[in-house]
Amino acid sequence: MSEGIHTGFDEQQYPHINRGLDGIVAFSTTKSFIDGQKGELIYSGYLIDTLADNATFEEVCFLLWNDRLPNAEELESLKKLLIENRELPQPILDYIKATDKDAEPMAVLRTAVSMLADFDDTKGKYDETLFEGQAIAITAKIPGIIAAFDRVRHDKDIVAPLKEESTAFNFLYMLNGEKPGEQAEKTMDLCLILHAEHGMNASTFTCRTICATQSDMYSAVTGAIGALKGPLHGGANTAVMNMLLELSKQGEDADAVAFTKEKLDKKEKISGFGHRVYKTFDPRARLLQHMSEDLSEETGHQELYKWSMDMLNTMKSEKDIDPNVDFFSATVYYSIGIQPDLYTCIFTMSRVSGWTGHFMEQAANNRLIRPRALYVGEKHLDWVPVEKR
Amino acid sequence: MSEGIHTGFDEQQYPHINRGLDGIVAFSTTKSFIDGQKGELIYSGYLIDTLADNATFEEVCFLLWNDRLPNAEELESLKKLLIENRELPQPILDYIKATDKDAEPMAVLRTAVSMLADFDDTKGKYDETLFEGQAIAITAKIPGIIAAFDRVRHDKDIVAPLKEESTAFNFLYMLNGEKPGEQAEKTMDLCLILHAEHGMNASTFTCRTICATQSDMYSAVTGAIGALKGPLHGGANTAVMNMLLELSKQGEDADAVAFTKEKLDKKEKISGFGHRVYKTFDPRARLLQHMSEDLSEETGHQELYKWSMDMLNTMKSEKDIDPNVDFFSATVYYSIGIQPDLYTCIFTMSRVSGWTGHFMEQAANNRLIRPRALYVGEKHLDWVPVEKR
Repeated sequence: MSEGIHTGFDEQQYPHINRGLDGIVAFSTTKSFIDGQKGELIYSGYLIDTLADNATFEEVCFLLWNDRLPNAEELESLKKLLIENRELPQPILDYIKATDKDAEPMAVLRTAVSMLADFDDTKGKYDETLFEGQAIAITAKIPGIIAAFDRVRHDKDIVAPLKEESTAFNFLYMLNGEKPGEQAEKTMDLCLILHAEHGMNASTFTCRTICATQSDMYSAVTGAIGALKGPLHGGANTAVMNMLLELSKQGEDADAVAFTKEKLDKKEKISGFGHRVYKTFDPRARLLQHMSEDLSEETGHQELYKWSMDMLNTMKSEKDIDPNVDFFSATVYYSIGIQPDLYTCIFTMSRVSGWTGHFMEQAANNRLIRPRALYVGEKHLDWVPVEKR
Repeated sequence: MSEGIHTGFDEQQYPHINRGLDGIVAFSTTKSFIDGQKGELIYSGYLIDTLADNATFEEVCFLLWNDRLPNAEELESLKKLLIENRELPQPILDYIKATDKDAEPMAVLRTAVSMLADFDDTKGKYDETLFEGQAIAITAKIPGIIAAFDRVRHDKDIVAPLKEESTAFNFLYMLNGEKPGEQAEKTMDLCLILHAEHGMNASTFTCRTICATQSDMYSAVTGAIGALKGPLHGGANTAVMNMLLELSKQGEDADAVAFTKEKLDKKEKISGFGHRVYKTFDPRARLLQHMSEDLSEETGHQELYKWSMDMLNTMKSEKDIDPNVDFFSATVYYSIGIQPDLYTCIFTMSRVSGWTGHFMEQAANNRLIRPRALYVGEKHLDWVPVEKR
């Protein structure tokens, strides 16, 4: 760690330092709109509720890449391309097979996506006519990478992708080795829709910053995965589930209200609540809440939903903070049998559609992204030979 | 590519959109200072000229990580650790050996650095007591990755790193399979010093943005490599050399003045000139110019230096633009036998010291980096079933 030179610098004296770039408008976009006061989220014209009720993940991909919904022919064509692009190159399967079982899933996904560039005939060339094809290639292969790594670390054979069915269906099939039921597919598809896009978050911003150097889409998505991996960004739903699993050790009669209050008293972080943009209920949290309620009944895990509601009500009454998207996605993923440490990977599987949409938008109206830093160190120091230091 | 919905949006109406974040101060830093008017560059207190005259790359690494120069014991300890960390894990060598010969060197480097995380006992944990060790591990291994890939693509055996000698010496040894002379080592070391750090450029900014999610150092450096790969950032010196090689086809008597004027007339981009920050001669360009002159005499490639000076003078008289760091680094690298498509990798080998220094600085005073985007699309569109679109 930097020990620093004492410069007497007090950052408070410099109100023009925009740490975090809060409130700085850096782009115009047609990808998504968040009304934090009303609790509205729009993807390229459509309310998230409209998309949740009607769309499939594949339609949302088309929407985020083209700013309009596909007609029947375009949708069939996209589905076909996504299916054709599912298979992983052998060297990537070899890499996954050779990986340590305790490797971090997001680290493996980051490496494998970076490696995909070597097998793209376009070599990730920066050319607007190639971008959608590159986005399809990456979006189609991420589910297989996640599933393969999870199979390998559990000593199971890797399952080859289906040459049919939706992204959601095929992913659950590759992960579990058996075809999912209608409810599980629908749940997975809805989760993919809800996490696809969300304004200028840290990973999307990373993606656009890399794109702005006219680097390639593989570089941009690899960088975005690295950003999403951070616990202050994509890692929160894993933390929510670990918290619920900690609570579950108290048995089915665990007291979630007391558990929450105790954490608040100890000033411990409670994951899954609050958001820099939403000042009310995150609309995605509402949709996931309904799904979580349905699933908890079907799977016989009613206690998870009850605990979640107890925590939610306690946080509201004690702190007046609402849950965010991570809070209910944790229990939903858990209910369909996905391990907590894969949640951020599932987030990636969905968000790649938004990232690549932003990449295309940035490339169409580009400017290198290069803010400034205020230098607060010393200047013009004299050289001192090493033996005199 | 996005076909867009016609929204009648005119970005000119929104002067508060800071595309490129020009002039927005996002951080305070003790890592480097650029005076674009005077043409001064300072690393943590020391003018680049002072460092070029006196320091080694290893001392510069310590400086950028600790904001002060090491004493004799600290310097010996760092050198020892860098040497001990040189060896590449076998799976990374296997990946490099299996790579296509025409793979992009920066793509291979990006994947290999991402993969390094799997072999770090700390798993790239976000812990300030571990950061310098992680920075050493990454900095020590990048030269070996570059050299190994270059050997493999030329059907040569990979050369194991030396257990002694400087980073510069060992890199040239691993690259060429023979120990370099004093002049080549000194030149390489100076190039590493000159490229180590340079304010809030796009790759350093990417590194800090990823760090700010509390992701790990491997993620941040991998993302930064992706940003540096872009031709608007790190790729320019390769473009300079390709331009000089194009000129060299006219023979030793090629007319660089006419060549430059012709390009200007055709409004073609001339790489290696101009900079968003420097309004005068880039001090690194001056240092590299002297080196280029010396080397061109020693290697008998005087024409390269002559053409460079002719181009420089033409650009000054026709456009009043000065060269940047990329202009002379191209001929310098060429003179010591490095292929043009490796130049951005060499840049990475050096700049990783600055990136990791910024990572430590960001982590010590963190805030998630998340600017805003102005939504300019439509809202609340009604759903239309696919068969009616």
